[in-house]
Amino acid sequence: MKALRLVNGQLQLAEIPRPDMPEEAVIRVTYAGICATDAAIVRGYTGFSGTLGHEFVGVVAAAPDAAWIGRRVVGDINVACGTCEACQAGDRHHCAQRTVIGIRQRDGAFAEYLALPLRNLYAVPDTVSDLDAVFAEPLAAACRILEQVSCRPGQSVAVLGDGKLGQLIAQVLHAHGIAVTLIGRHARKLAVAAGAGIATRHADELRSANRRFEVVVETSGRATGLAEALRLVRPRGTVVLKSTSATPWMLPPAAVVVPEVTLVGSRCGDMPTALALLAARKVSPQALVEAVYDLDDGLRAFEHATTPGVLKVLLRCYLPEGTPR
Amino acid sequence: MKALRLVNGQLQLAEIPRPDMPEEAVIRVTYAGICATDAAIVRGYTGFSGTLGHEFVGVVAAAPDAAWIGRRVVGDINVACGTCEACQAGDRHHCAQRTVIGIRQRDGAFAEYLALPLRNLYAVPDTVSDLDAVFAEPLAAACRILEQVSCRPGQSVAVLGDGKLGQLIAQVLHAHGIAVTLIGRHARKLAVAAGAGIATRHADELRSANRRFEVVVETSGRATGLAEALRLVRPRGTVVLKSTSATPWMLPPAAVVVPEVTLVGSRCGDMPTALALLAARKVSPQALVEAVYDLDDGLRAFEHATTPGVLKVLLRCYLPEGTPR
Repeated sequence: MKALRLVNGQLQLAEIPRPDMPEEAVIRVTYAGICATDAAIVRGYTGFSGTLGHEFVGVVAAAPDAAWIGRRVVGDINVACGTCEACQAGDRHHCAQRTVIGIRQRDGAFAEYLALPLRNLYAVPDTVSDLDAVFAEPLAAACRILEQVSCRPGQSVAVLGDGKLGQLIAQVLHAHGIAVTLIGRHARKLAVAAGAGIATRHADELRSANRRFEVVVETSGRATGLAEALRLVRPRGTVVLKSTSATPWMLPPAAVVVPEVTLVGSRCGDMPTALALLAARKVSPQALVEAVYDLDDGLRAFEHATTPGVLKVLLRCYLPEGTPR
Repeated sequence: MKALRLVNGQLQLAEIPRPDMPEEAVIRVTYAGICATDAAIVRGYTGFSGTLGHEFVGVVAAAPDAAWIGRRVVGDINVACGTCEACQAGDRHHCAQRTVIGIRQRDGAFAEYLALPLRNLYAVPDTVSDLDAVFAEPLAAACRILEQVSCRPGQSVAVLGDGKLGQLIAQVLHAHGIAVTLIGRHARKLAVAAGAGIATRHADELRSANRRFEVVVETSGRATGLAEALRLVRPRGTVVLKSTSATPWMLPPAAVVVPEVTLVGSRCGDMPTALALLAARKVSPQALVEAVYDLDDGLRAFEHATTPGVLKVLLRCYLPEGTPR
């Protein structure tokens, strides 16, 4: 099968055997999304080698339980050992032995087929389209914030960064009745958010808006992102960190200690929560799709996805015989 | 009167007029404590000029309300405006216009006399000695952690740094029945903590103790302190930051985001809480006193206080006529 792989630090389209793990499900990948983390991995963030990709929707082609075959699914990307202390405590996302599709010691979704244990799969409701369902993973990561931080209607919340994840987070908060302001630097991207009914501000307009927000969600991944978030957040406020970058921020301890700010690291979320939001049509991630490429054009797709100012680029991975290309 | 002042970045013993502010109390300073923040200020941390010192116990010499005269007091170091949004919300410690004794636009306690508004003063119970009461301010800062983070008996809590503040924090947590481990690099200081019944470990013993503690309190102020705390804390755990240093830490966002750690900035605390702990004899800060110098010897005291491995150095500030020196 075809797969977009990182080999010796080089992204390449390769022909590899279809996964064949009888104890896991094999999923025919319909769509996969290219994410900022993929770009970071190509730059060497995790030392990963293998097939990239961790956002997908697909159809189960083979499974240890035949009832799953033919089901449309999305998947939790963390494959936990099930036996360690974290797993026993129900915290599979923090299993120290976990593999993660396309990120850590496990092939990902930029391929025609993908293997995952059944316990990682979630059936997609019939009312949710493939082009929405492919956003389930980043949407779950957006929803995670609400499990960690008390954001109440009436509180002032800012999302820093008008990229893919910032937009999804703003949509999720907006859907929960929270007064969210999306702060970015790209008029076109801010217009997309405004189209979804979200208040937006250009970062330059907020240069003197010090200590205005009770919660600031940093998604920009910029080297200055944390400093900007610390400038915008109120004393005793909360900054949620969402960028998984290995490039160090410079953090003067006094900037956190003196105003007694809380910084909250936030990663993966609950897939059923994301699917429920999609089924209820409370968010509209499709508006973020810039382009869809066939997997054959994966290298070009990746180049497009990592062009500044571009929102979501999708890969159409499994193409049945006779599909027009 | 005599005062130990920072003038053009230079610490010097000076003769200045006694404070005379009819709307504030004037306190004769009995003892004042030299703190790591004072050393940071001398290195230029806040750009402060004036009399240093923010840990003190003294006796009210003059006050707008005569009932206070002669009372033994300690003081909240933050002098708030009382009218801004933070003040109206009851959060005087985060008043944007605040002055802070010995730290921000207000003369401090390394002097024979100190001025503070009456609302900043707290009477010291008769059962608490001067040598304990002088620790009320850093002790309140230690207690602050318990207002911010849920530390329950049974949880594993580590305090990083065996210095003055780390020792006080370990004492406070221990007094609340929390299983605290003080981690340091100085056998002598660790022995002081062990003498107070606290479990101690040399940092070198914990080199492979990754992700062991639910809460880690970073007090070392070392450039590597945050990285060490992030290594020791469990996924979804909490790191409390206590060092007010302006020297930036290098923080790779992924080190916070991937394990979903929470970082909590923690500064000043509630003085009555600290006095109550002292009155109940649940902590014994006197054990941390290395030396007491007369204010006349302030420069020598400062040199002693900033010598590596030294715990608390106190200044005896107001000496009545005829006091043997």
